[in-house]
Amino acid sequence: MKIVFTFQPGKTLLADLNTNFPGIDFLAFRGIETAQEALGDAEVIATYGEDLTEEIVMPLPRLKWVMVFSAGIEKMPLDALRKKGVFVTNARGIHKIPMAEYTFGCLLRHAKSFDLFRIRQEKHEWVPDAPLSEISGRCIMIVGMGAIGSEIARLAKAFGMKVIGVNTNGRKTENADEMYTPDTMVSALNEADYVVSVLPSTKTTRHFYTKTHFEAMKPSAVWINIGRGDAVEPQVLIDALQSGKIAHAYLDVFDEEPLPPEHLFWKIENITITPHISSHSEHYLPRAMEIFRHNLHTYLTKGRDYINTVDLEKGY
Amino acid sequence: MKIVFTFQPGKTLLADLNTNFPGIDFLAFRGIETAQEALGDAEVIATYGEDLTEEIVMPLPRLKWVMVFSAGIEKMPLDALRKKGVFVTNARGIHKIPMAEYTFGCLLRHAKSFDLFRIRQEKHEWVPDAPLSEISGRCIMIVGMGAIGSEIARLAKAFGMKVIGVNTNGRKTENADEMYTPDTMVSALNEADYVVSVLPSTKTTRHFYTKTHFEAMKPSAVWINIGRGDAVEPQVLIDALQSGKIAHAYLDVFDEEPLPPEHLFWKIENITITPHISSHSEHYLPRAMEIFRHNLHTYLTKGRDYINTVDLEKGY
Repeated sequence: MKIVFTFQPGKTLLADLNTNFPGIDFLAFRGIETAQEALGDAEVIATYGEDLTEEIVMPLPRLKWVMVFSAGIEKMPLDALRKKGVFVTNARGIHKIPMAEYTFGCLLRHAKSFDLFRIRQEKHEWVPDAPLSEISGRCIMIVGMGAIGSEIARLAKAFGMKVIGVNTNGRKTENADEMYTPDTMVSALNEADYVVSVLPSTKTTRHFYTKTHFEAMKPSAVWINIGRGDAVEPQVLIDALQSGKIAHAYLDVFDEEPLPPEHLFWKIENITITPHISSHSEHYLPRAMEIFRHNLHTYLTKGRDYINTVDLEKGY
Repeated sequence: MKIVFTFQPGKTLLADLNTNFPGIDFLAFRGIETAQEALGDAEVIATYGEDLTEEIVMPLPRLKWVMVFSAGIEKMPLDALRKKGVFVTNARGIHKIPMAEYTFGCLLRHAKSFDLFRIRQEKHEWVPDAPLSEISGRCIMIVGMGAIGSEIARLAKAFGMKVIGVNTNGRKTENADEMYTPDTMVSALNEADYVVSVLPSTKTTRHFYTKTHFEAMKPSAVWINIGRGDAVEPQVLIDALQSGKIAHAYLDVFDEEPLPPEHLFWKIENITITPHISSHSEHYLPRAMEIFRHNLHTYLTKGRDYINTVDLEKGY
């Protein structure tokens, strides 16, 4: 049995797999191009989820399972896989710690004017006067209350913040003081000092945030997007920022990635950009590999307790 | 009865005092120079604690009480005040929320390489590769486990960190996994990913950190000073940073403030400077004023329950 990685998980983790699953051929490549030949008799593909297409997967005769080593699967050929009867698992759930930390990094960076002081340091300027606030006592709205959103909520309570959560049906969630649905959330936006978007990319979340949302926010509000870039049309966000509807946007995800060098986002003063790294940490691959090993064991023993099976209809 | 402010607490807070204490003359000035004449018959002085000298206070015939609207009183003429029988209260305890938030701002800014990504944004560079870690699972050593240190410890536990505390006698403190004394802490330094100094400036804390401390730390360790700048000799810190004994220093306090433009600290790449603002927030003065109002009521009713009386011998 052959399992093909379209990325390099590193020597240690690969050696680990070979030790734990001695009968299996693990083949790791630097990308889909070099992996192509080996895919022909692959039963399992391990991928970051951005490199498979209908053309690639349809002809594969033995493919049974795709393990995606990330959470977003919007670039996967889900229809083709469903037609072929291939099942998909992903690495959702392992992102919550680094992404919640990233979020509070943004909140505190903003509240403490760190970027302003950095510019002053470059000029050797001792100027204490600056907008300095506390996140304690402030209100955070978290749009998307899954594993990541809930971890953000937990930390927000530790920081003494008010937490407003948004999920599909408004059901209560631990650590949220109030819950709203996508339809009712606009009425609560004027309370939020920080709005964090943790939405995945699905048919219903594309261009989710409209002019109406940003107009309902405080002029001092900060919008943070760690979900997916297509949750807002770039021009809608740019208008909101340039007309002072909100104060700042911290963006880790974009409609188009890598963000092209000529994109307007790069040079708008109240946009801060990081290149889709909010989930990255030294623990990322080991944690994803744990899920894979568990599922591989289930697969080999014909068990049923898979972690993170993806619903190919819903797309998450 | 006359109470002289050597700073401007702002119209709202001043109006508040006049309403609550109608029989009292509150006089607020822009600094000690303009206040000088009014000090002559002041019974109480409200100050940030950096402007009084022995020459100023000794001749004042009516002075009974000095309220310091900050926590550090190392620049106060404590001996002179003791001789005159003047008592001193300060604003300690109100700094814990903003200073703990500032500390986690530094930790996360470092762990998420925010400054590196800022430079890349300026160049419109999409380069995800960077040192990215989690503070979760890491170890923080907090030197000085008073109100501020304890608040840092509480948040550190919420972030899933190991907490090592240091106080004078090593007594147990909530949220600390282990406690050390100034004498024994060196043995634990090699475990710490972050060392936060919250030491006040006293006779025993001057140049507290020596070469030995920095040599015992991990090369990846980050040192954060939010206490007082004289806890380390500048050259000792510079040597530690330039020889790679530790990775980075976040400094909010300095031996000499304002830090002179020609000071080496400004341009050392692995030093990040903020101008003594870790306690600043929109809540600072209102919170300090609450303490003052409580103590003023106590003073006027000849009560005994003063908040934050300073021990003029110990210096805190």
